[in-house]
Parts: sequence; structure tokens; C-alpha cells
Amino acid sequence: MSNVQTEKTYEKVVPEIQMWALEYQGPGKKDYVKKKKPIILAQTDAVVKMVKTTICGTDLHILKGDVPTVTPGRILGHEGIGIIESIGESVNKFKVGDRVLISCITSDGICDYCKRGMFSHCENGGWVLGNKIDGTQAEFVRIPYADTSLYSIPEGANEDAMVMLSDILPTGFECGVLNGKISPGDVVAIVGAGPIGLAALLTAQFFAPSEVIMIDVDDERLKRSKEFGATLTINSKNSSIKDIIMKITDSRGVDVAIEAVGIPQTFEVCQDIISPGGRIANIGVHGKSVELHLEKLWDKNITITTRLVDTTTTSMLLKTVKSGKLKPEKLITHHFQLSDVIKAYDTFGNAQKEKALKVIISNEVLS
Amino acid sequence: MSNVQTEKTYEKVVPEIQMWALEYQGPGKKDYVKKKKPIILAQTDAVVKMVKTTICGTDLHILKGDVPTVTPGRILGHEGIGIIESIGESVNKFKVGDRVLISCITSDGICDYCKRGMFSHCENGGWVLGNKIDGTQAEFVRIPYADTSLYSIPEGANEDAMVMLSDILPTGFECGVLNGKISPGDVVAIVGAGPIGLAALLTAQFFAPSEVIMIDVDDERLKRSKEFGATLTINSKNSSIKDIIMKITDSRGVDVAIEAVGIPQTFEVCQDIISPGGRIANIGVHGKSVELHLEKLWDKNITITTRLVDTTTTSMLLKTVKSGKLKPEKLITHHFQLSDVIKAYDTFGNAQKEKALKVIISNEVLS
Amino acid sequence: MSNVQTEKTYEKVVPEIQMWALEYQGPGKKDYVKKKKPIILAQTDAVVKMVKTTICGTDLHILKGDVPTVTPGRILGHEGIGIIESIGESVNKFKVGDRVLISCITSDGICDYCKRGMFSHCENGGWVLGNKIDGTQAEFVRIPYADTSLYSIPEGANEDAMVMLSDILPTGFECGVLNGKISPGDVVAIVGAGPIGLAALLTAQFFAPSEVIMIDVDDERLKRSKEFGATLTINSKNSSIKDIIMKITDSRGVDVAIEAVGIPQTFEVCQDIISPGGRIANIGVHGKSVELHLEKLWDKNITITTRLVDTTTTSMLLKTVKSGKLKPEKLITHHFQLSDVIKAYDTFGNAQKEKALKVIISNEVLS
Amino acid sequence: MSNVQTEKTYEKVVPEIQMWALEYQGPGKKDYVKKKKPIILAQTDAVVKMVKTTICGTDLHILKGDVPTVTPGRILGHEGIGIIESIGESVNKFKVGDRVLISCITSDGICDYCKRGMFSHCENGGWVLGNKIDGTQAEFVRIPYADTSLYSIPEGANEDAMVMLSDILPTGFECGVLNGKISPGDVVAIVGAGPIGLAALLTAQFFAPSEVIMIDVDDERLKRSKEFGATLTINSKNSSIKDIIMKITDSRGVDVAIEAVGIPQTFEVCQDIISPGGRIANIGVHGKSVELHLEKLWDKNITITTRLVDTTTTSMLLKTVKSGKLKPEKLITHHFQLSDVIKAYDTFGNAQKEKALKVIISNEVLS
Repeated sequence: MSNVQTEKTYEKVVPEIQMWALEYQGPGKKDYVKKKKPIILAQTDAVVKMVKTTICGTDLHILKGDVPTVTPGRILGHEGIGIIESIGESVNKFKVGDRVLISCITSDGICDYCKRGMFSHCENGGWVLGNKIDGTQAEFVRIPYADTSLYSIPEGANEDAMVMLSDILPTGFECGVLNGKISPGDVVAIVGAGPIGLAALLTAQFFAPSEVIMIDVDDERLKRSKEFGATLTINSKNSSIKDIIMKITDSRGVDVAIEAVGIPQTFEVCQDIISPGGRIANIGVHGKSVELHLEKLWDKNITITTRLVDTTTTSMLLKTVKSGKLKPEKLITHHFQLSDVIKAYDTFGNAQKEKALKVIISNEVLS
Repeated sequence: MSNVQTEKTYEKVVPEIQMWALEYQGPGKKDYVKKKKPIILAQTDAVVKMVKTTICGTDLHILKGDVPTVTPGRILGHEGIGIIESIGESVNKFKVGDRVLISCITSDGICDYCKRGMFSHCENGGWVLGNKIDGTQAEFVRIPYADTSLYSIPEGANEDAMVMLSDILPTGFECGVLNGKISPGDVVAIVGAGPIGLAALLTAQFFAPSEVIMIDVDDERLKRSKEFGATLTINSKNSSIKDIIMKITDSRGVDVAIEAVGIPQTFEVCQDIISPGGRIANIGVHGKSVELHLEKLWDKNITITTRLVDTTTTSMLLKTVKSGKLKPEKLITHHFQLSDVIKAYDTFGNAQKEKALKVIISNEVLS
Repeated sequence: MSNVQTEKTYEKVVPEIQMWALEYQGPGKKDYVKKKKPIILAQTDAVVKMVKTTICGTDLHILKGDVPTVTPGRILGHEGIGIIESIGESVNKFKVGDRVLISCITSDGICDYCKRGMFSHCENGGWVLGNKIDGTQAEFVRIPYADTSLYSIPEGANEDAMVMLSDILPTGFECGVLNGKISPGDVVAIVGAGPIGLAALLTAQFFAPSEVIMIDVDDERLKRSKEFGATLTINSKNSSIKDIIMKITDSRGVDVAIEAVGIPQTFEVCQDIISPGGRIANIGVHGKSVELHLEKLWDKNITITTRLVDTTTTSMLLKTVKSGKLKPEKLITHHFQLSDVIKAYDTFGNAQKEKALKVIISNEVLS
Repeated sequence: MSNVQTEKTYEKVVPEIQMWALEYQGPGKKDYVKKKKPIILAQTDAVVKMVKTTICGTDLHILKGDVPTVTPGRILGHEGIGIIESIGESVNKFKVGDRVLISCITSDGICDYCKRGMFSHCENGGWVLGNKIDGTQAEFVRIPYADTSLYSIPEGANEDAMVMLSDILPTGFECGVLNGKISPGDVVAIVGAGPIGLAALLTAQFFAPSEVIMIDVDDERLKRSKEFGATLTINSKNSSIKDIIMKITDSRGVDVAIEAVGIPQTFEVCQDIISPGGRIANIGVHGKSVELHLEKLWDKNITITTRLVDTTTTSMLLKTVKSGKLKPEKLITHHFQLSDVIKAYDTFGNAQKEKALKVIISNEVLS
């Protein structure tokens, strides 16, 4: 019943038109190669000519072979903006030529999960781009359920900023800030000052917390955190996080702890510093189980949340970018052409050395 | 600044009047002995002549020596109803002779936690009765902050039912049902069919879930669960819980899993059966850490909560008992006189053999 | 962009196949006549063979000429169940032969309002059936956006009960009960004991209010209210509503007042009896403005809500019907065949005399 | 049972010590006169030496004779900060010498309304200062229920800013911003740019709305609104509010309309410009009923709220002031000594001519 069809179907029906793309070729291997250009497979599809895309930490995980749903031959990438090139008959909201933002989450809009706003668990979608179907690090991409998976780009918008709304901003906001229920006056700690932690930092400021404390091991990232609005930074290599936080909170702990790394140690930090009544919002992608100290926490009235981004807030984030409340282009440190995508991966893959946060990859033919 | 004063102060000021009480005498030891009758120590206190009390699972933990804040010589008990015998000058809501319900949680009503409705973490109260100060398994008890720690008993109320509102009903309701955000149509599983799990079962029905599944190892308790409204029961000794639940939920899992035991295995069950978007509400008192499977749950959009009962819903529960929506007297299986309190402990301590849920202990002089 | 197309387009394309239907022919006029059978106009449409339908109070308003969007020639009706006869290519959730519940609200699932759960204000849908496009009091009906406007009927469901889920139950529940934020222990008053007030009464009981007081001028309806779970009934012809309510609420007033009539006098009653902190939830369709007593209410911390049903709770209501928590078939007092639809209107139009609540109209060919 | 005792009791017990105060002497009459200095009447009282106070729009209403609960001889004023001079035995949170913020709302912390967070309707308190008991425009004031009606002033706080937290900031925030449920990206209109409308404007920015539109008839106030963060201002004398707002919102209307005047015309504006799904939050004190257009609004899914400030957010606002997120001192335009309180009234009473927002009145002996 799904239209998230495999390329097998596609191969049979279409005369081969070629395009360039970044292909995953098995653990540790990738190349910039010629691939077949996608076409409309269902009346709810759109094919989008890419204008700009980016690389996500998840893409690095895929390359390590950590994501078993991704098979060799897959075009990577689940973020970006582009221009609609062709469109299925049942797509109502868009027409050829529209400039669109691609959501990292594909949603059919009709299954029970979508009706509850949990697009991440869409029965026919979810995170499929650059995973179960070909992605956005290419000249063209096919987007299933275009009506519910694409967003119009407002006239005059900063297009680099828009690319940050495909994944990283809604992820930081929904999984960290909204799940953490940040409220005016709260003391918030964000463990991890990488791109995702910084996205949480930027959007945390929507709710006027009195303190946002950034915790990391990299002084460069902590310096940037300060520029992005952190009221305090802690380098956990040099200091006892718990001591500092208990001192500034009169021994209570923080109202909200956001985990933005994905390892047991950082989740432990969150448990150490949370106050009675506090919320621990997990964003990190975890590969191992963690120890949950229910022997200490059972009576502390805390809440722990997990979430794959639903991108239900994309429209709202678009409004805040348009109004100037949010400037996600701050997260961008490097620019590349699509033909240099391998170099872009090198830079992003050596983030600390290169002082890289997010990179923009432009499809030169177009932008 | 607290008026939760120690008995040391008390000893010095008051001529000794005697009363009978159940005294903790160190791990494994208790006795029914003569103790000094309590008096008003602060203008916000009340002294209450006990009418009925009960025994809580926590009292058994104390007797094992598991609760280090309880020292030998302490009168146990944090539940019950009684009649106000004397009262401090600053108590506004009550007068001598009023019949009152004693909350297991003492709250000053003025600290930051109380103002946020987290009475459990009251800076001058919380769970102190039968813990840090003398409790209710006695002829008399001193209640600090009477205005915010006692409730009027409605005319004509079933007094056995009232005793269930001191702790067990608000605990099941707040920590299980409210934290689990049970909504009409939900599928709910409660792991543990002891008194606390049954209290959750009774109050879960306030929100019209479509299924409430009770899980336990004791067929007798499961049988009772059926009488109390469970739509399905599973004896985990004989069946694979996960298989059954996945079958009846089309492989989704439950919307809400309530942990009402307090051991790693039962918390594991909750993680196994929770659906994407589901809530795990912990009620159990845990003595050990548990394994949290973030490697499976990080992207499942789940919420885990812990809570010590705040008794913020006591007034509301009183209304539902008064209106007949809630019949907590169902939980009572045995009745004793205060002079038989040791026997009452024996019965309650052998719950499975005695088919005991909650016991009522009456102060014979009065009732 | 909408596929809620006019019959003009339709006339041109389709060879005329005939069916029977109830046609509005201008104020005061209706007839049971032959009409063209509908066909698929967009790939997101379904054509449904009607099994059962009903008449709504709104249909009577239309017949009085009160609803200007309804033009002569329109087939009336926006409720019912049926079997899918033909289906557009982009419909994913259903196939020919499926038994379906028709929502009174058509939603495209993609506009901003739908994404916010306000299907009632769908930019391409909303209340269109039997209003801007032909409705369900016919042998067949075309349903636009079938994926988001139809619901599967569970195996073995009571089909009369299902018809009540098209409009009246979600209306009473969403506009009255949910907007009124009914909570356990609340005192609720419902002004108007017609079908919609009774639907609110049935679903109010999902949330364990301590009192539900029904107010009407018809003793017969009040008698039925008692059978449906009202704890108190007041005939406003004989009694002072305010005096009675203030007496039973210790002069506070009710926590929730639901307006289920739609005239200034009943809205006035709600303002008279609401307590500080209370909620007035309007369900009634009003033809005139009302007086809002801000001079008395400005400092009473009250909330007033209005709402056209969104049918966002239809899935949930289906679950509660399936589990036996809700028995909406109680609302049905009369049964007719489609060929007797004029007689059905007569009965429903003389509700008080006929002691009618809801009527079921069956398409004899099928059921 | 209340300790909000009348001065009658007080006269009998205390030897007369004198102080200066602003006395209401009946409609149109006030004077700066010698009055008896207050003393502790209940063990929960504090007597506070005033440091700074201010005048509220409500004080002007009282002087017109519009507030029947205020009788001649009353000392006016319900805002300010001071130093505790004497204190009842049951007050736990404060001691003599503490610098405190006085809440305009007195709450006993124990009645049902207080337990629900509706301090405004406290059975023994509410708005009593400068109304039913003597107020803060004096050298000293008695504060009943000191523990729940006073707040500690943080070390080093701007004391002028603190005075704004007694009433105007929590009023704008609770009745306007919180009741209006302002969310990131929202379009908000505030009707009335007086002090209360500006307080709503300042605190609305806690939630990152994309637009805040201020509407008034006074260009000076609109100019100030711009400085305070309004994204658009409309002078309703020169422009059609509805036309402008529908233009900038694509004919939808605003998400939130805050009424900050208190007359039928401004409430009418709110109804004109509200979007489907929008919230109208009333702050204004209304003397007359208004027309509510249910004939247009019944199906628009809107919410209307009223509220007397509860001051439940005072602690939170203190944190946001301390952290620099909120700078309420911006609202202060004039400073006076207590001996010049009559002149202060003249200035505040001619706000438009004097370009006055809030005035600070200092007790010269102390500050």
C-alpha cells in the first residue's frame, strides 16, 4: 500500500537519464558517481531538483556501517532545499517550479501515527530519505507524499538558513526544547555542544529560560555556545559538572537536562544534575543501553523523554526564521559545491580540527 | 525554620502522658508499647486522636531496615483518619472535634516545591510521618502544618474508604494514572496487582481506557483484578507477556505501562511492551538501578516518569468517593483493633497466604 | 486546487446513472427524487454506497432556509455508514468493498488547519457534505479526500451505533466535554437535553465527574437523561436553575457549563451558574449575538469556548464503542427505510411529540 | 476564621502610633494624612515598612467611586516593596529586616482556590490591600498571610523593577500572555498600549511570537510600544484595524488578541480580528456587558478568557528579571517622594498629557 517503492520497480519502467550523486558503497566506502535520475512513481510524489543540501552526523554513522537499513548503492542525504521539477497528479499544495524545503521525515498524513502528529513513525514514511530510498545529496531526489513532506520556502528567505530546517533545528527543538518543556525562568543544561546541541540552544531561547548551561569537552565549541546565547559553559574535562551546577542552583539541580551526544556517560551526567520535578530530554542516538538510577530517581518526580524528530514544528520554525527570531545560518561554517561533496565529507568528518559545524553543499548548476 | 521538630525538644517540655503505639525497634524488631502522648509543638500543628489506620508496604520495608531515615524508637504509620484533639493557634481550617483524613505527605504550603504542587518535596515536610517523626499507628499523632496536611471528612463518608485516601489511592492515581496520561480509548498495562497496582486499576477507570491489562504472578490477585475492572489478566509465570500484548495490539504495544512492583524485571517488562509514543509511569520503590534500553527506545517517542505521591489530588478523590464513582473500600480485606496491631502486621506481611490486600486497624476506644 | 468540485463539472463528464435521494428544493421544500449517481472526480475521492444515514438538527435549519450556503437541488445529509463502491487511484487506506464510517467533516489532511488538527476549517473541506456538495441521504455519495475523511468500521460493530459517530458523538465530546475540560470530581451542567446534549452527557462520563446536571424544559428528555447517567435534572420551566445549582455547590456554581441549545437565554444560564475558574463550552448553533456579562465575569477566571466539530476524536470514540465504554445506540429512537425518508423527517421534526432523539434511515437495497 | 481583620479590632487594642498615608475620603476625595500605624493582628501577619510603592489604574477607579468595597478612610495602594518590621510567630519564610516584594493578591495558601492556584479567589484574601484593608501608599502596611503573600527580593535587584512585579507584570503576563497561550511564531495583537498592555507586550516576548501588533489611539504610546518590541503599531483613529490585520495575515486574523482597555469597543475589535482557532484574552476591567457575536463565532473554534491576576508567576518573573530577560523598569516614567503622593496622582491621572506610564513613590525616610 506504501508508495515508498524500491528502485527495482523504477529500473524496469524508465529509460535511463543520468545525474550525479553521493553513493554509499558499503561500510567505509562512498563515491561521487553517476546514478539514474528519479521519476514520479506515485501520484503523490514530487521530483525535486536540489539547490542546497548538507551532511548530518547520521550520514557518518551510515558510512561506518552502523545503520543496517541502508544498503550499498543508496544515495545518502535527508536534508535540503530545491525546486519542483515534476509532480504527481494528486499533489495539491505544490506545482512545478515551486521552491521547497525537504523535510527529513516523510509522512503520508493519513496513518494513525500521522494523525497523532507522530510523523516520525508514519507507517509509510518516517525517516526513509537517504536510508530506505535515495536521498538528497544528488542533483535530483524523489519525495513521496509531497503534500505532507515538503514546505514552501517564503519569498526572500535565506536559503542557507532553510537547509537547517530540514532536520537539525526541528530535532533540537522538538526532542530537546519541547520535550524538555522549557519554561520562562528555567535553568537548562545541554550536554553536548555539537550542531544538535547548538540547535537546542538556539531554540531554547524561544522560552526565556534564565540560564542555559552548555557542557562539552571542546573549548572551541563552548566558545561558540557563548556567542549563541549560553549563559554559562562547562568543559567537563577540567571541572566537576555536578559541583558547579549544584553550586549555582542552591543544590537543587537543573530544571531541564538535554542529552545531545548519545553515550552512557552523558546520560549519566543528566541524571546527576537533574532537580526534583525536572525533565531529561534525550536527543542523542544511542548504540548501547544505559544505567537508569531508579534507586535514586524513583521519588524525584522526574520525566525522561525520547523522540525521533516528527518535524511537526517546521511551519512554526519557518515563521520564526522569517520574523528574525531565529537565525539558523549561524550554524553554517563551510560551503562546498556538489562536485566537491567528498571534500565536504572530509571537513565535516573532522569537525573538531576543521572547526566545522554544518556545511552547505550547493548544486552548482542551479544556485 | 521547620516545625517538624524532634522528640528531644518535646521530652523536655511536657509532663509525660502515656498512650499505646507500634514502635520500630531496629531491623526486624517492633513492639506494641506505651509511648508519650504527643502535644502541640508549633502554632501550625494539630494533635489527632486516631480512629482508624492501616499498614503500608513501606512499613514492611522499614522493618527490614531498608529505610535509613527511620531510627529505633519511631512510631510507624503514615495513613489514617481521626478526630482533632488539640490545635495550634495559627490553624485556620480546622477546630477541635473535626473528623479529619491524614495525608501521608506533610506540606507547609509555602515553600517553592509546595507552590509548584510538589508537596512530596516540601522543604519542611514531605514524607515525614512514621519516618522522621512519629506516625499514626498509635492512639494519637501530631500533624505539623495541619491546614495543608489534613482534609475534612465529608458527613456520612465510609470511614474505611477514607483511610485508603491517605496514601494508596493518591499514589496509584498520581504516580500511575496521571503521570501515565491515561486517555479514553487507551490500552493500559499495570505490572503488579498488589494494593498499589489495584489502586491504579481503580482510578485508571476515571479516564475510560479501552483495555486495562493486569500482570502478576499470583492468580488470586489476578482474579481480584478482574472483579475490580481489568479487561484482561496475564500470569507472567505461565505466559509470554510480550507475545500476548503484541497480539492484542496489532504489534504496537500498550499506550501506557504502569510499573507497580519496584524491581528491574518488571521495569524491563514495561520497556518490552510500550508502543511508540507510549508512557511508562513508575510507581514502584526501587532499591537498585535498572537497565534502560535507549539503544531501542531513543527513537520511540516515549516518556518515563517517576514520582513520590504529592497528594495534590486528595480533594478530588474525596469528591469521587462521595459521588460513588470510586469505592476504595474494595481494597480492604481484614480488620483489626489497635491492640492487635502485631497480628495485623503478621497478616499483611503474609499477604499472598492470607489473601490480604489492605487491613484496617481501629482504635477501639473511639470507633 | 480543491477537489470539492461543483456538480457543474460533473454534469458535463458523466453519462447519467440514476439513484434516489432527498433533495432540498428551497426554504420549506424537500422531496425524495431521482438524482444523478455520483462518480469519482479526483484521485483522492471515494464513492460510497450508503447503508445507513440519519437526520441532524442542522438539516432542519437548512430546510427553514437558515443556511445560505445550501442551494436548491442539493442532496442533504452529512452522516452515515456505507460500502466503498469505487475509489480514486491515490487513496491508500481503503479499497472497494470496505465498510466505512463517513465523517461529517471532510479534511484534505494537508492544509495548515488540518495539520493543526482543526479539520473543521480545512481549506478544501470542512463541513461540505449536504451543504456545498451532495450529501448522504441518498443511495450513493461521493466523499472527497477519502483517506482523511472516512474510517474503517471494526468487524462486528453495531452499525446503528456507528452512525452516531459521524457527527453527534464527536460534536458532544469535542465541543462540549473536551473544550469544557471535564475532570474527575467536577460538577457539570448541560443546558439542553436534546440529542447533542445527551451525546455530551454520554461522553462526559469518560472523565468521572461527580455530578452531571441536565437542564431542559421537556420532562421526557430529562427522564431519559437520568437513564443516560445524569445525577440531577432540572426542568427550567418549574424551577430557578441558579438557586438549585448554588444550593448544591455551596454557592460556587458549576465547574463546567455546556450550552447545547443555541439561543441567548441558554447562554445566559451558563453565565449565571459558572463558578470562578469554570469553563463554558458552547455547542449550540447561534443565529443571534448574546450578551456577555464581562462586568461580572472579567475577574472570575473563566474560559468560554466555541467549536465546530473537528472529528479528530473519531478513532478514539471508535475504540470506546468497541470496548463497550460507550453505547451511542441509546440515542436512537426510530428506524426508517430510505424510501420513507420524508416520514423520517416528519418524526424527527416533531421530536417532542414523537419522543424522538435520533432516527436511523436504512438503504433497503443493502442492509 | 479569616485574619483579614477590620481596623475596628485594631483600634481597641493598640496605643496610637502615627504614620503618614494616602487616604481615600469618598468619591473624588483623597488626602495625605496621619493615620494609625498598623500592628500584627494574627500570627501569620507581617508589618512592612514601605520603601517604594506606585499607583495603579484601579486606584483612579476607586477615587471615582467605582469600587464599592472601598470605604472612606481606607489607605490606598496594593503594590510595592519594603522591609519587614515585625512579624507573627507562625511566619516561617521571613524574619524582621528582610527586604520583600508585596503581592497585590493576598493568599492564605490553604483554601480550595489557593490549592488550585487561584489565589485571586482566596477565601480569606484575594485583592484586599487598599480595598478591604489598608494598603501600601503609606509608611507602613500590615500584610496578612505573609508567608504566601510576600516574596524575598534577590540581592542587588533593581528595586524600581521589583515594584512592577507586585501587580502590573503578573497581570499582563497571566491574564494576557498565559491565558492567550502565546506560542513561538504566533501573530499577537494587543488592544491598548497603556501600562498593562505594555506589560503584556514585554512578557509576550518570552514566547517568541513572530508579530506583536499594538493598537491604541495615542501615537506617543505607540511610539513607546515600538521601543518595547512591537513589530507593528496601529493608531485606530486613523486606520481600519481589521483591514490592516487581515492584509498582513492573509485574511486569517491574529492567533491571539489581548484586550487591555476594558470597554465594549475594544472587545469588539478583538472579535473582529481573531482567527479561527484563536484566543481572546481579556485583561481589561469592564463596567458594562459586551456583545458577543456567537452568530459569527460559534463555529470558529475560539477561546475567550477572563482573569483576575493570581500572582502565581511572581517567583518565575523574579527569575527572569534577575537573569536580565525582563526589564520592567522600562515602564517607569516618573519618581516622587511619599510626601508628594498627591502630585504623583496628578501626574498619573493625566497620563497622556504627562506622557506617564508608571510612577515610583519612595518613602524618603528609608530609601
